[in-house]
Amino acid sequence: MRNFKIVLSYDGSDFQGWQTQPGYRTVQETLETALQTLTGEARVRVNASGRTDAGVHALGQVANFFSGLHIPQHKLLGAINAHLPADIVVHSIDEAAQSFDANHDAIRKLYRYVIHDGPTPSPFLRKYCCPSKRRLDAAAMARAAIVLEGRHDFHSFETEWPNRMSSVRTITHLAVNRAGDTIWIDVEADGFLYNMVRTIAGTLIHVGRGYWPESKVAEILKVEDRAEAGPTAPAQGLFLMRVTY
Amino acid sequence: MRNFKIVLSYDGSDFQGWQTQPGYRTVQETLETALQTLTGEARVRVNASGRTDAGVHALGQVANFFSGLHIPQHKLLGAINAHLPADIVVHSIDEAAQSFDANHDAIRKLYRYVIHDGPTPSPFLRKYCCPSKRRLDAAAMARAAIVLEGRHDFHSFETEWPNRMSSVRTITHLAVNRAGDTIWIDVEADGFLYNMVRTIAGTLIHVGRGYWPESKVAEILKVEDRAEAGPTAPAQGLFLMRVTY
Repeated sequence: MRNFKIVLSYDGSDFQGWQTQPGYRTVQETLETALQTLTGEARVRVNASGRTDAGVHALGQVANFFSGLHIPQHKLLGAINAHLPADIVVHSIDEAAQSFDANHDAIRKLYRYVIHDGPTPSPFLRKYCCPSKRRLDAAAMARAAIVLEGRHDFHSFETEWPNRMSSVRTITHLAVNRAGDTIWIDVEADGFLYNMVRTIAGTLIHVGRGYWPESKVAEILKVEDRAEAGPTAPAQGLFLMRVTY
Repeated sequence: MRNFKIVLSYDGSDFQGWQTQPGYRTVQETLETALQTLTGEARVRVNASGRTDAGVHALGQVANFFSGLHIPQHKLLGAINAHLPADIVVHSIDEAAQSFDANHDAIRKLYRYVIHDGPTPSPFLRKYCCPSKRRLDAAAMARAAIVLEGRHDFHSFETEWPNRMSSVRTITHLAVNRAGDTIWIDVEADGFLYNMVRTIAGTLIHVGRGYWPESKVAEILKVEDRAEAGPTAPAQGLFLMRVTY
C-alpha cells in the first residue's frame, strides 16, 4: 500500500464537520466514499491533521490515506477531484513516506478567524465570517492579543473535553489585522485546544467593542478559568489555513 | 405615499432570479413580503433597475417602492434588514422624488463577469464565478473586447426575446483584468439585451482559450447573428455592480 498525502480546501457550510457521524454529511465520509469509488477498495480511511467542527472551513487541511492506487501521478489530482462534490477540492496529492501521519506529524497549524464589521453585513460573507454590527477597535484587539503569544496554559480558552492531558500550548504567531470592513485574527500554534481559536476570537471581540479593557486578556489567561473568557465566536468565521510538518 | 429608493445586494445562489414567479423563491417576492410585514400595507410593489436571472448576484441593485411608511430615517435601514433573510441586504434607503423610477431612469448599468482559472477550482467560489480548467490569455481577451465599446447593434450577443424593439446599445466601458487566478470582465452600458454580458463573456473565453483569434469578435459583431458568438457563460459568474441615474 502506498501512503498518500493530500492538501485540500473545503467550504464547511454544508458539512457537519470533518469527522464521520452516522446520518450526517461530513468531509471525512465524503472523501472516503470518493476514494473508495476511485480505487475500488472496500475501505479507505482518511486521517486529517485534525478535525474541524460543523461550519468551519479549510483552505489548507492536510490528510493522508493508504491505498494501492495505481493511477499515474499527473492524472491523480484530476481523478480525485472528479469524484468529489464542488465544496471539497484537493489541491495536491503526493506519495509520502510510509511513516507519515497527517495528525501526529503536524508541528504547527495556522487558523484564521474572520470578522466583518461594516455598516451593513454582506450577503456573500454570511457563511464565511462573524458579523459585528458595532465597529471594532482592531488596534486594541491586536495589542490585547500580544500576551497570548508564547507558551501558556490556555485552560481559560478551551471548551473542556474528556481525557485532555494538558492545556499547555505554544502560540508562535498571533496577529489582528484590518482591511476595510474585514478584521482577521491569525493564530498559529503547536496545537489547539477544543474551541481555542473561537474563544480567543470571542474574547478579542469583547475588547474590540470596548466591553473589556485590553488588560483583561492577561487576567483571563492567568486565572485558567473558561468562565472568565469571552463567548465562543461562531464557527462560520473560522478557517484552517495551513499545516506545517 | 412616499417613494423610497433602495440600494441592495443579494447572493443570487438560492433565488430563482429577481422576478416573482409562482412557486419559486425570488428576490422581488422576498423583498415585497418583508416590506408588507414591516409597513402593514397589503401590497407593496418593488420596481428594480432591471431583472436578474436565476443565480445572478447583485452588489448594487437599485429599486424603488411606494409606501406610507413612517419609521424615522435613522431606524429605517435596520428595520428593513431585520425583516430580510441573510442573502439580501439593503445598504441604503432614501426618500426619492415622486417621479423617480428605478427602471426607466437608469442611464447606465455596470455588470461584472468573474472567471477563475487556477490549477484547481476554489470550493468558496463555486457559486460566484465561472471556473475554467484551462488558463486563459486575459490580455488577448482585453484586446479582443475593444471593438465592442461604443454604439453598435449587439444582436449577435443577445438571446432573442419577444417584442425587443432594437438591439442597438452603447457600451461606455469594457475592461478585462486579471488578479492571480481571477479574471473579471466589466461591462458598462446604457442598457443590456437579454444574456448580453454572459454571451460577451462566453465569446471572450473562447478567445482567451485560443479557440478563436482576437479578430473574431469584430466579425461576430458585424454579422448580427447569435449563432456566430460564443456560448452563454453560466449565471453564477455574473454580478450587477452599479446603476447610475
